[in-house]
Amino acid sequence: MKIQPIKAVFQGEHGAFSEDAARRAFGNEVVTLPRRSFEEIFEAVIGGAADVAVVPIENTLAGSVIKNYDLLVEHDLTIMGEVVLRVMHNLIAAPGVRLEQIKRVYSHPVALAQCTRFLAKVAHIEVVPAYDTAGAVKMIMDCGRRDEAAIAGRSAADVYGAQVLAAGIESNDQNFTRFFLLARPDRTADIPLLGNSGIRKTSIVFRVGNKPGALYKSLAAFADEAIDLTKIESRPIEGRPWEYSFYLDFLGDGTDAPVARALTRLTTLAESVRILGSYPKAET
Amino acid sequence: MKIQPIKAVFQGEHGAFSEDAARRAFGNEVVTLPRRSFEEIFEAVIGGAADVAVVPIENTLAGSVIKNYDLLVEHDLTIMGEVVLRVMHNLIAAPGVRLEQIKRVYSHPVALAQCTRFLAKVAHIEVVPAYDTAGAVKMIMDCGRRDEAAIAGRSAADVYGAQVLAAGIESNDQNFTRFFLLARPDRTADIPLLGNSGIRKTSIVFRVGNKPGALYKSLAAFADEAIDLTKIESRPIEGRPWEYSFYLDFLGDGTDAPVARALTRLTTLAESVRILGSYPKAET
Repeated sequence: MKIQPIKAVFQGEHGAFSEDAARRAFGNEVVTLPRRSFEEIFEAVIGGAADVAVVPIENTLAGSVIKNYDLLVEHDLTIMGEVVLRVMHNLIAAPGVRLEQIKRVYSHPVALAQCTRFLAKVAHIEVVPAYDTAGAVKMIMDCGRRDEAAIAGRSAADVYGAQVLAAGIESNDQNFTRFFLLARPDRTADIPLLGNSGIRKTSIVFRVGNKPGALYKSLAAFADEAIDLTKIESRPIEGRPWEYSFYLDFLGDGTDAPVARALTRLTTLAESVRILGSYPKAET
Repeated sequence: MKIQPIKAVFQGEHGAFSEDAARRAFGNEVVTLPRRSFEEIFEAVIGGAADVAVVPIENTLAGSVIKNYDLLVEHDLTIMGEVVLRVMHNLIAAPGVRLEQIKRVYSHPVALAQCTRFLAKVAHIEVVPAYDTAGAVKMIMDCGRRDEAAIAGRSAADVYGAQVLAAGIESNDQNFTRFFLLARPDRTADIPLLGNSGIRKTSIVFRVGNKPGALYKSLAAFADEAIDLTKIESRPIEGRPWEYSFYLDFLGDGTDAPVARALTRLTTLAESVRILGSYPKAET
């Protein structure tokens, strides 16, 4: 039975990029639940307070969100989809405020780092790191500050009744964030997803022992089936120095014959293999 | 001509784990120069203010220090050695202070995260993130605080005349940090290194186009020569969404015949290949 409306939990404040990703995946009727930490959003889905978690996993400028890779392994949730969003940063202030009045600007450190070219042009403005992007907009609006601004997405300006003073201030426009949509394994079939590209992807995590050539032999299982790897990430294994878990994303569904053969072969090589999910590739 | 004494620059305050690594590599006569940021330590070596930079690159619990991978590519320095240190955390306070008096403890967020089991046992103590481990010891000693403590290595207690209240408080003892020793390419031969294991390692970074199987074919160049890969790391390429640079560490010197053959083959497959250095494997 289809769940309606879908409850999606995300990290940050209303107006966050993750909330935009939730709407892209599930439409405007989705109920979005903000939480402070990534741990809390995993717990919310496992405990049943939410149907799906929307977690950033990778940004094309900043790289992987390592914390969420670790949480994926620690929890029994399934990747049921992915969303790719173009990240556009904006200088946001209270209505009527002019750029010349701004003395301080708040945002998440990654957002600040992605706007260095703009910030160098307004060198009289002091740059202050904040907990998150939309949260910085909420703070300047809650405090009624007219000499402070925040850097965040346009949704954050809309949510808190603020105005965009300068749009698209990121230094590099090839700025995309990829999000995973995570649900309980027994619930994924009940959660309808918008925008199906028709192409399937699968994500797995596996461990090989500390033997020469082990990673190469593992990748051979996929190469021999002409499976296209789209991402590889390594993370240390706790308590086993210099040994790693490998995360792979590749094109194909877990039930496709070539993928099934590759996974069977990987199982014979690896200490452990876990399929994190098969899901429709995001439309970009 | 051998440089004596060697000037080694590191990030943090005197007493940092990186300073311990500098002494392990170059002996107690090494002159250690603290700097606030990783950028500054790269610049100090390039500008000639220091002979060698000591940078943490990987911790067996926390993973890769991504920032330093990026800086390696942006600067023309050579890896001339590596050091592996067992990280032991200690609760450190002013002399004469007892554990019951402590109300607050400061340290780097990674150190705090590695001591959660101990911190749960002293739940009345407030945990406060700080800029770095040794810097936290310096701060409580400078301020003469008797109700505050810091978590840091033993060297930090020695440097600032503090005492160790509890030793080895890390939750997991398989806690090692690997450091790179970086020098200007024209100076590496002049900098003598202690403790040579006799085994050589090489680190490279390469880019392959976004073609199916490109990473696998690159790794085949090494597998076919029976070269043992010890680490792989991927980082996004700025301005080219979903394309990555790969960092490889492997056993063997760049001038060994199998390594030279593998690198030649990789050059024909990859868009670019850069050898970051060949150096003696750390004794652990």
